[in-house]
Amino acid sequence: MRFDHAGVATNDAEGLAFLYEDVFGCEIAHEERFNELHVMFLELENGYFELLEPQGEGTISRYLENHGAGLHHIALETDDIESSLEQATDVGVELIDEEPRRGAWGHQVAFLHPESTGGVLVELVEH
Amino acid sequence: MRFDHAGVATNDAEGLAFLYEDVFGCEIAHEERFNELHVMFLELENGYFELLEPQGEGTISRYLENHGAGLHHIALETDDIESSLEQATDVGVELIDEEPRRGAWGHQVAFLHPESTGGVLVELVEH
Repeated sequence: MRFDHAGVATNDAEGLAFLYEDVFGCEIAHEERFNELHVMFLELENGYFELLEPQGEGTISRYLENHGAGLHHIALETDDIESSLEQATDVGVELIDEEPRRGAWGHQVAFLHPESTGGVLVELVEH
Repeated sequence: MRFDHAGVATNDAEGLAFLYEDVFGCEIAHEERFNELHVMFLELENGYFELLEPQGEGTISRYLENHGAGLHHIALETDDIESSLEQATDVGVELIDEEPRRGAWGHQVAFLHPESTGGVLVELVEH
């Protein structure tokens, strides 16, 4: 599997995008409104930051209330998300998404339950 | 800059390494005792997981007490860590490490202060 992106919960996606561009040189690769979120992808040489700013109530707004801004999840790219989910289930990992669903940028995504993966919220992504 | 690794705080690096190998197919690339930590690097196609298990008191043991196991930091690789730190300072980012220091695996590393980077603890790495 390949690193795809690091998901960051923020109250100011645009401000953070400008800062990361200045500090890390990563430019905006994609931007959209998705599921009550303002989502911005910033391009690294081998992946992305995904900035997630809530536009209403949802998992990210609740995350920000409980934890504050910061690293929210890590996404790994797979060529076959169905078989990756099957593999995860086979070794006892609990799934948040039993089936892949449409995520930001039109990708197929599925989240694994962090209690099964050492407290790390992992998203599987198939482009 | 390039994604280098996702740092994970854990109470059981070995157990998590075996799980990640089963789930994500990432094998152990490097392992060492470093600064009161048992550190294991697991290889992705374009980077690593860095599993950090405390062997005594320190920042990771305190992190685990306060936050529990999970994503601790994200590391970005740069070809010139000195100039990357200068660039960060120039745009107002506060540094945890004013100068690069020797990190795990013999790399030069420096951490940026998460209050300056949207709550994300970012490590710069030069191999």
